[in-house]
Amino acid sequence: MQLLKNKVMQEGIVLSDNVLKVDSFLNHQMDPVLMKEVGREFSRRFSHEPITKILTIESSGIAPAIMTALELEVPMIFARKHKSLTLRDHILVEKVYSFTKQETNEITVSKKFLSSDDHVLIIDDFLANGEAAFGLARIVEQIGAKVAGIGIVIEKSFQPGGRLLQEAGYQVESLVRIAALDNGCVTFAEEVIS
Amino acid sequence: MQLLKNKVMQEGIVLSDNVLKVDSFLNHQMDPVLMKEVGREFSRRFSHEPITKILTIESSGIAPAIMTALELEVPMIFARKHKSLTLRDHILVEKVYSFTKQETNEITVSKKFLSSDDHVLIIDDFLANGEAAFGLARIVEQIGAKVAGIGIVIEKSFQPGGRLLQEAGYQVESLVRIAALDNGCVTFAEEVIS
Repeated sequence: MQLLKNKVMQEGIVLSDNVLKVDSFLNHQMDPVLMKEVGREFSRRFSHEPITKILTIESSGIAPAIMTALELEVPMIFARKHKSLTLRDHILVEKVYSFTKQETNEITVSKKFLSSDDHVLIIDDFLANGEAAFGLARIVEQIGAKVAGIGIVIEKSFQPGGRLLQEAGYQVESLVRIAALDNGCVTFAEEVIS
Repeated sequence: MQLLKNKVMQEGIVLSDNVLKVDSFLNHQMDPVLMKEVGREFSRRFSHEPITKILTIESSGIAPAIMTALELEVPMIFARKHKSLTLRDHILVEKVYSFTKQETNEITVSKKFLSSDDHVLIIDDFLANGEAAFGLARIVEQIGAKVAGIGIVIEKSFQPGGRLLQEAGYQVESLVRIAALDNGCVTFAEEVIS
């Protein structure tokens, strides 16, 4: 997605060889017009799927997810992150390890918003090791629903998440794929036109 | 806002005399078409203000805030919540007490996304005691920017937040005002047509 690539080139800050800071348009400050285009692009890429729900995780996934939901006219659900839970009635729970924060969180979705008939499109802002996306997929599958696909705004394709998700059989669509972050520079992966 | 009132009547669950659960369309699952209408209504109510930024707080404020930002074509910023921070460089910090959780969080916004020229519209999903809204307003004022107004999706007007914010001189626009939650029933406050 060229618009997003331009934004990464203009405003992305390479902090280390695996950290790209995009807090001016995606993680802290958000560009609403760009988010609308992101939603439109996800809706186009998954137009062959009978999607009934969008699922994301708080907080940076919410804006791209609600724009995709608006485009597809289906409800959006955001999973909550908790340190650990005592009350587990009526909720779907999965553990998710964060390599960045080096901690395990529990993510939860209320059982009443997913059913076995659902075709769920998972949306997230970043894909690195795939922990969050796999956690969301397990939530969907716990209730017997189908993962219709996984839409990612920015994939760091030099980390294994994208490959692992595809090997597990999921359709992964990343709007921008970053092949390397070296010497303060972003190298994009070759684009596969779908 | 009648559409939102209908949704509260159809799907809101009164859990106690001060807790209304709206997790089917606002706090966990979100209705994107309703969120778009919410954004349109906030934009209408503050159309007299030269708004340059939208500010909200993670997580439930993000969807109504991004839709308002889209309508006004200005950037949206969401404040982060933290237990407590050690590194305080380059960020604006305020303490916010949550009566629901009975804990104090620090909320932060990066200094680089607000300047003294900004006219900031604060958006949040709920207004009860006003702690979050006051915290966001103090963030804006710390940097010398102007609070253009405060837009709330659901105000519990039997709690003091709305009155306190107005007494402090802010224009508060709540799309739905709830006067009481008694015996499992929602009583709406009289609507003031603006």
